[in-house]
Amino acid sequence: MCRWLAYSGTPVLLDAILYRPTHSLIDQSLHSRLGVETTNGDGCGIGWYGPQVDTPAIVRDIGPAWSNRNLREIAGHVSSPLFFAHIRASTGTAVQQTNCHPFRHGRWMWMHNGSVADFHRVRRDLALAVDPRLFPDMEGSTDSEMMFYLALTFGLEQDPPGAVARMAGLVERTGHEHGVEFPLQMTVAVTDGHRLWSFRYSSQEASRSLFYSTRVETLRALHPDVAFLREISDETRLIVSEPLGDLPGAWNEVPESTYGVVQPEGDEMLPFAPQAA
Amino acid sequence: MCRWLAYSGTPVLLDAILYRPTHSLIDQSLHSRLGVETTNGDGCGIGWYGPQVDTPAIVRDIGPAWSNRNLREIAGHVSSPLFFAHIRASTGTAVQQTNCHPFRHGRWMWMHNGSVADFHRVRRDLALAVDPRLFPDMEGSTDSEMMFYLALTFGLEQDPPGAVARMAGLVERTGHEHGVEFPLQMTVAVTDGHRLWSFRYSSQEASRSLFYSTRVETLRALHPDVAFLREISDETRLIVSEPLGDLPGAWNEVPESTYGVVQPEGDEMLPFAPQAA
Amino acid sequence: MCRWLAYSGTPVLLDAILYRPTHSLIDQSLHSRLGVETTNGDGCGIGWYGPQVDTPAIVRDIGPAWSNRNLREIAGHVSSPLFFAHIRASTGTAVQQTNCHPFRHGRWMWMHNGSVADFHRVRRDLALAVDPRLFPDMEGSTDSEMMFYLALTFGLEQDPPGAVARMAGLVERTGHEHGVEFPLQMTVAVTDGHRLWSFRYSSQEASRSLFYSTRVETLRALHPDVAFLREISDETRLIVSEPLGDLPGAWNEVPESTYGVVQPEGDEMLPFAPQAA
Amino acid sequence: MCRWLAYSGTPVLLDAILYRPTHSLIDQSLHSRLGVETTNGDGCGIGWYGPQVDTPAIVRDIGPAWSNRNLREIAGHVSSPLFFAHIRASTGTAVQQTNCHPFRHGRWMWMHNGSVADFHRVRRDLALAVDPRLFPDMEGSTDSEMMFYLALTFGLEQDPPGAVARMAGLVERTGHEHGVEFPLQMTVAVTDGHRLWSFRYSSQEASRSLFYSTRVETLRALHPDVAFLREISDETRLIVSEPLGDLPGAWNEVPESTYGVVQPEGDEMLPFAPQAA
Repeated sequence: MCRWLAYSGTPVLLDAILYRPTHSLIDQSLHSRLGVETTNGDGCGIGWYGPQVDTPAIVRDIGPAWSNRNLREIAGHVSSPLFFAHIRASTGTAVQQTNCHPFRHGRWMWMHNGSVADFHRVRRDLALAVDPRLFPDMEGSTDSEMMFYLALTFGLEQDPPGAVARMAGLVERTGHEHGVEFPLQMTVAVTDGHRLWSFRYSSQEASRSLFYSTRVETLRALHPDVAFLREISDETRLIVSEPLGDLPGAWNEVPESTYGVVQPEGDEMLPFAPQAA
Repeated sequence: MCRWLAYSGTPVLLDAILYRPTHSLIDQSLHSRLGVETTNGDGCGIGWYGPQVDTPAIVRDIGPAWSNRNLREIAGHVSSPLFFAHIRASTGTAVQQTNCHPFRHGRWMWMHNGSVADFHRVRRDLALAVDPRLFPDMEGSTDSEMMFYLALTFGLEQDPPGAVARMAGLVERTGHEHGVEFPLQMTVAVTDGHRLWSFRYSSQEASRSLFYSTRVETLRALHPDVAFLREISDETRLIVSEPLGDLPGAWNEVPESTYGVVQPEGDEMLPFAPQAA
Repeated sequence: MCRWLAYSGTPVLLDAILYRPTHSLIDQSLHSRLGVETTNGDGCGIGWYGPQVDTPAIVRDIGPAWSNRNLREIAGHVSSPLFFAHIRASTGTAVQQTNCHPFRHGRWMWMHNGSVADFHRVRRDLALAVDPRLFPDMEGSTDSEMMFYLALTFGLEQDPPGAVARMAGLVERTGHEHGVEFPLQMTVAVTDGHRLWSFRYSSQEASRSLFYSTRVETLRALHPDVAFLREISDETRLIVSEPLGDLPGAWNEVPESTYGVVQPEGDEMLPFAPQAA
Repeated sequence: MCRWLAYSGTPVLLDAILYRPTHSLIDQSLHSRLGVETTNGDGCGIGWYGPQVDTPAIVRDIGPAWSNRNLREIAGHVSSPLFFAHIRASTGTAVQQTNCHPFRHGRWMWMHNGSVADFHRVRRDLALAVDPRLFPDMEGSTDSEMMFYLALTFGLEQDPPGAVARMAGLVERTGHEHGVEFPLQMTVAVTDGHRLWSFRYSSQEASRSLFYSTRVETLRALHPDVAFLREISDETRLIVSEPLGDLPGAWNEVPESTYGVVQPEGDEMLPFAPQAA
């Protein structure tokens, strides 16, 4: 399994979110509290949108985040209004750059924590369901990348929640066909650079942890002394695998079988259920 | 493209073959003479059979061979009667361990120089032809690994030349279906730890270079002063992408559309042609 | 800090010691019980003596041991009567191959768990004490490599315990000169391929854990059902940072300020104290 | 030896300079024309100044530039008015991140092509000449980093040309004391984020190649059709190991024993000679 965070809001140095919090994602790479493992040392990656280019930059490495000097350098010098960061704990597939998150397709980014159960058994059937035009772009061997390409196949660029629901539906159906009781465990973040969707779902209704940050103006009222809260806009939002610190009132669990959208026209949280593909 | 060598014969320190020759494979990683590129710096790998274990050891790294200290250490301390070595020049696919040669399946090893033309276009069709039981074991994204799994699908473990012929036949047919004029370019080595097969073939009849070493007793007569020749048995044989030095009479080109077998019951060289899968 | 093991005895596949035990060194890379950190993911290395070459082979990598496929391959195919293995948890210096253990000089190998306190402050003074003829061979930036070169300077090849005592004496004196209260914390293993010395010492008399295995014939009597014990000779001995399993009676703590020698003429354990260099 | 480039001027995407030119630095990593080797595959690095932070970001990797996806991502998404890029061909020291260029100290960056002759023999004497307060910050094992720390010792932050001259003087004197005929071969770039100095010197007066770009307004007059020239300011300047393309009139060789300054108050080129340290 893995840990991740997604940030949307006032452009900030990545460092402010990635390294400075007490229980930052980098700290979680060694000392995760809520993850399946305490260590998430099988690679790391960041993806960010900048002012000039429509597609996100993706930087991924196979070493642990905690000792990655390049990651720290980039975080200390690059600002972005929308970025992903991910630390990986492999569930068996190879430790290689093409298995690190985030994954990108055009202007879209995807990252995942969880797994397709018994992926080895269903991998071929899922691969066959990927749009043949997209198939050759898959470079890695993870369930996470496959889920991304299935979602793209099912219309991610037109209807993200629907496409993810159909992907989840296919994974569940395929798993059941192979005798897998609980085929899917996922927390997913996906963005097109403007809106940010996050999903929490598992077949067993025992999903990996996922939290969203409280509205900034509420937090400011609670903590008038926290300088950082005065520097960020009301629209700023974080979605994280586990809280980045212990600020009271800052973090809220995403309910089971739920997805959320962070968007200019107002954030939303809605029920999520797999659909027939 | 790439460069490789396969050794079968008297157990020797890998170093004697990998590093000591004037134009060794390590030298070819920087200064290939006959390759498509002079530099083969996109990874390297070795595979060897030892005295105790039936399956070969495979050690692969993503950096260039010329600066790989671990490779030099292993070569300087490990002996083997049958080993492969490979240096990679990527034709586009990712530089990652699972794309480095040799590939292994059980006691079988495979390595390749060449390419499936327009692999991007035929990759899915070829993947579908892989035995579903083998499909999940493919970890990388290269044409070379796919060719191995197709050969396994077509009976490599029972009939290596036939299986490789059927693999080549499928690659050619699939390429032609996608409008590719010359679908296959390959020099392949494959072994089960006892016999060693090598293949030189390309659709265009303009195959990458491949050489085999002259019979040791002939070489000894030609070069009575070369100490190394006195240390190895008559059965010792090398198959290489390009000669490891300039010893007169030592190297012979494998003809176009030919395969060879190095085996206890006498080496052979026979015509090779793709077959319907 | 780090974890390590040293093996001397009947030639075995490295795998038997490195991977098979319940709480193997590979397991300790993720789940150390007695270390300063539970994770030791900043590199790993092995060094072994083989039948043909007098100097040991050293293979080191910067990634974590738990996901290192090459390490597993080598361990599964190489046998040795005397080998070291080390997993690193950096105390601040760079994660790079030249900072990974074991270190080698000629036929000697060295590995270390612990630290020179405030190494940053004393590094230059210690470097100046290294024999100028040895100085240029130091390639890394760790305290561990510096300790090795100081011991070499002080006669390691003639008198290992004396040289290590003088090294420790110099580190303590230099630390005290710079106002460091407890300058040294070390468990060290060193070998010339025939004898194996291990040291447990710290200025504060609160040294990192170190254990040695019980005499094989005693263990056999205790555990007549354990097959592995019947396969190894009476002289076989393991020195480890922490026990590799829970076999009752198998592991004994090396006392504070003690060193041991594993050697053909009978193993010994003796008091250790720093000496004036 | 190595190849490098330094850019100062209108903020541009690094990509425009690093990847787009016909004979870009990335191309030089495989096909250098004027270097000692055609391949520069022993690591790469970039350093850039951004809008928000006074110190430069430094990203370095041990693999070849030509296959480095992260480098391409950063280059495609980061703009800077002042940046360095370097590709390494090791002259013997380890391939590790701390040996990759650029090097940084506070807001200063340094990179180098060339070598201290017989560095192994003079390394200790040079190390002793480094300011003891700076000594512990040296992390790698290259002559290039040592030269940087010597220049810092001799006042680089106050008087760059004088400090580099004194560094060169010490290297020459030390080399001569050890019987080295031609102790120094260097092209160096150094910057504080505002001004950019470059040096071309060798004891033998046969220095590695170094070029500077023609004044932009002259180039614009020569090539009114080249769009890129209209996008950059008159003050934009490139210093490169070898020309990035074949645009007539674009590149001028830096004379032997010369240094240049790129600065707001007008660029200059002046004679360079080592001085007594």
